[in-house]
Amino acid sequence: MYHSDRTDRAFVVGSKSLTEFVVEALVSVGAAEADAEVTAEVLLAADLAGVDSHGVARLRRYVEGLRAGTINKGARPRVVREAGGVSVVDAENGLGQPALCLAVDLAVERAKEHGIAAVAVRRSNHIGIAGWYTERAARAGTLALVTTNATPQVAPSGAAEPMFGTDPVSYAVLTDGEPLCYDAATSIVPRGKLERLHREGRPMLPGWAVGPDGVTSTDIPLVVAGLRAREGYALLPVGGLGEEHGGHKGSGIGLLAELLCGPLTGASWSRHTYGPQGADLGHFVLCLDLAALGDIGRITRDITAMADEIRAGSPIDERTPVRLPGDRRHRCAEERSANGIPLLRPVVEDLGKIAELAGIRPLTAREGQL
Amino acid sequence: MYHSDRTDRAFVVGSKSLTEFVVEALVSVGAAEADAEVTAEVLLAADLAGVDSHGVARLRRYVEGLRAGTINKGARPRVVREAGGVSVVDAENGLGQPALCLAVDLAVERAKEHGIAAVAVRRSNHIGIAGWYTERAARAGTLALVTTNATPQVAPSGAAEPMFGTDPVSYAVLTDGEPLCYDAATSIVPRGKLERLHREGRPMLPGWAVGPDGVTSTDIPLVVAGLRAREGYALLPVGGLGEEHGGHKGSGIGLLAELLCGPLTGASWSRHTYGPQGADLGHFVLCLDLAALGDIGRITRDITAMADEIRAGSPIDERTPVRLPGDRRHRCAEERSANGIPLLRPVVEDLGKIAELAGIRPLTAREGQL
Repeated sequence: MYHSDRTDRAFVVGSKSLTEFVVEALVSVGAAEADAEVTAEVLLAADLAGVDSHGVARLRRYVEGLRAGTINKGARPRVVREAGGVSVVDAENGLGQPALCLAVDLAVERAKEHGIAAVAVRRSNHIGIAGWYTERAARAGTLALVTTNATPQVAPSGAAEPMFGTDPVSYAVLTDGEPLCYDAATSIVPRGKLERLHREGRPMLPGWAVGPDGVTSTDIPLVVAGLRAREGYALLPVGGLGEEHGGHKGSGIGLLAELLCGPLTGASWSRHTYGPQGADLGHFVLCLDLAALGDIGRITRDITAMADEIRAGSPIDERTPVRLPGDRRHRCAEERSANGIPLLRPVVEDLGKIAELAGIRPLTAREGQL
Repeated sequence: MYHSDRTDRAFVVGSKSLTEFVVEALVSVGAAEADAEVTAEVLLAADLAGVDSHGVARLRRYVEGLRAGTINKGARPRVVREAGGVSVVDAENGLGQPALCLAVDLAVERAKEHGIAAVAVRRSNHIGIAGWYTERAARAGTLALVTTNATPQVAPSGAAEPMFGTDPVSYAVLTDGEPLCYDAATSIVPRGKLERLHREGRPMLPGWAVGPDGVTSTDIPLVVAGLRAREGYALLPVGGLGEEHGGHKGSGIGLLAELLCGPLTGASWSRHTYGPQGADLGHFVLCLDLAALGDIGRITRDITAMADEIRAGSPIDERTPVRLPGDRRHRCAEERSANGIPLLRPVVEDLGKIAELAGIRPLTAREGQL
């Protein structure tokens, strides 16, 4: 989970006008209206939740990809295989959001028929935050799990080179309140966090990345350059280097994401994504209908009681009550829905360039100037 | 993953005679022959794989539980609910192994019909190593996942008290060779490892356990006593204390196990297991039929190629090639199948007491004496 800092917050934008801007920008470079709308919704959900790295900060790459044809603007994600509760979707190298949204809705529908369902997506692109999809499925009465592979940046346990993606894993389940939603990269930190720390003059910690010499490095520029060049440096899985904090176990969770999104889906695994043939990312969706397991009222009551009991647990630090996954993001979304979304200067500059590139009306901000 | 040390190896026993001893001991206290056989097979699989903490070292507790009636020797695990690919099994407070084995075989059968299946088990007991079950399902052409809850010993992220079990998570998938099998507790280390280190005069590391003051402790006797008394001390999830090594993410994996095995299954979650009503552990099985996703030959070839490519990766330490989950256990099992199983002195003493208690012929060893 990566959260925004506000130290260099420069501008505040209302979510409605930001959504309209994103839709207009995507449509202007050829995306279908419906595809643009779902993509905007997923990007905005990240900005609202405080996961700024996965919000409109990504828009420029989508716009450029659609213009250049590296993302297929004419893609129509389609089901290419069905067997009971299991389906495979070919995303035709289009935007990841519409493809994964289709997959999640299909998984919910099939889970209502079969009790449980899985949908694998191949030939796809970046999906935004995985938690948007699992929460959508959770609200439909399920426990849902979504994972995706990505650019190779993470070293498996025992290795000193990047092979896995930061492969986020998200699960969410219906409760009597907001869905309980976990959403996290399988590395300790993503590359974006290193870049942010560097901007702020703060250090990275040992155990987050490993160099080709097998030693963990804390030299941010060196690590980031190595990650970009895909040589020399790798992020480390949850638990870090070796077995001291369970890095071999964290690595096993990344491996599961790689298996599900690569060989099982019929997509490339992370080490071979983004080859000459395009992105070929894979995503994997699992949906379990709570009603298949028992009385759904009893189940959500039990989940809610368990969650409340954990939150009421004795905290490590008396000033910080125990939080569950998603608590911080839900609070942030409430606050930003009411008060607007703060955007960092480089993002604002990107949005300006997008407006120019796409020939659309630039975004206006409530505070500061664009 | 917890592995045996051989420093205090005292005796070596053949797996066949050890299996016969376990079956005889369980039957002598009232277990059905078939239940005793599957329980013996799972215990022996742990001893063969080097996971000595989950092998015949557990037998005394089973024998005493069956004698005392805290484990129901007359239990007949039965399916109490079915909806498509989802089933719920009531284990009737019997031995965990026969109940979970039935659940796994049912999950494989239903996955062949629906492409994917889940089986939840409630009112159960200790299951041995989770990897035995996932490997069984993997060999039948699936990717399988098994998890269980347990005695509360692990603090969720941000909490300073035990709430979660060490809840192992195992997954396995068919390859062109042995199944690729991950099997690990969701804490960095289990309590048994602390006890072993203490016996060997070796230290525990900071970040493995937390005290009621919210500070990580390295005082093994204090931590172990606190864990036994269920107060004051807690193990930490993969990633350790706080967010530095991703402990908040490791905690989210434990939470998923708790959700699946507690509220979704209709069993108690770990904090409330082993109440006055008996164990009431929950297990959860997921099975995905590889053939539902595509050509099974293509899928296992891709998995095998990916696994081989990871193993051939540039290692952290040149003397230690990159290993995948299960590699060490498979090698150990080969070696022990050929040369016998080493048993530690306290285990040998326990087996002697079991023979007395059950009035059966004591075990003989190839080396050393019992």
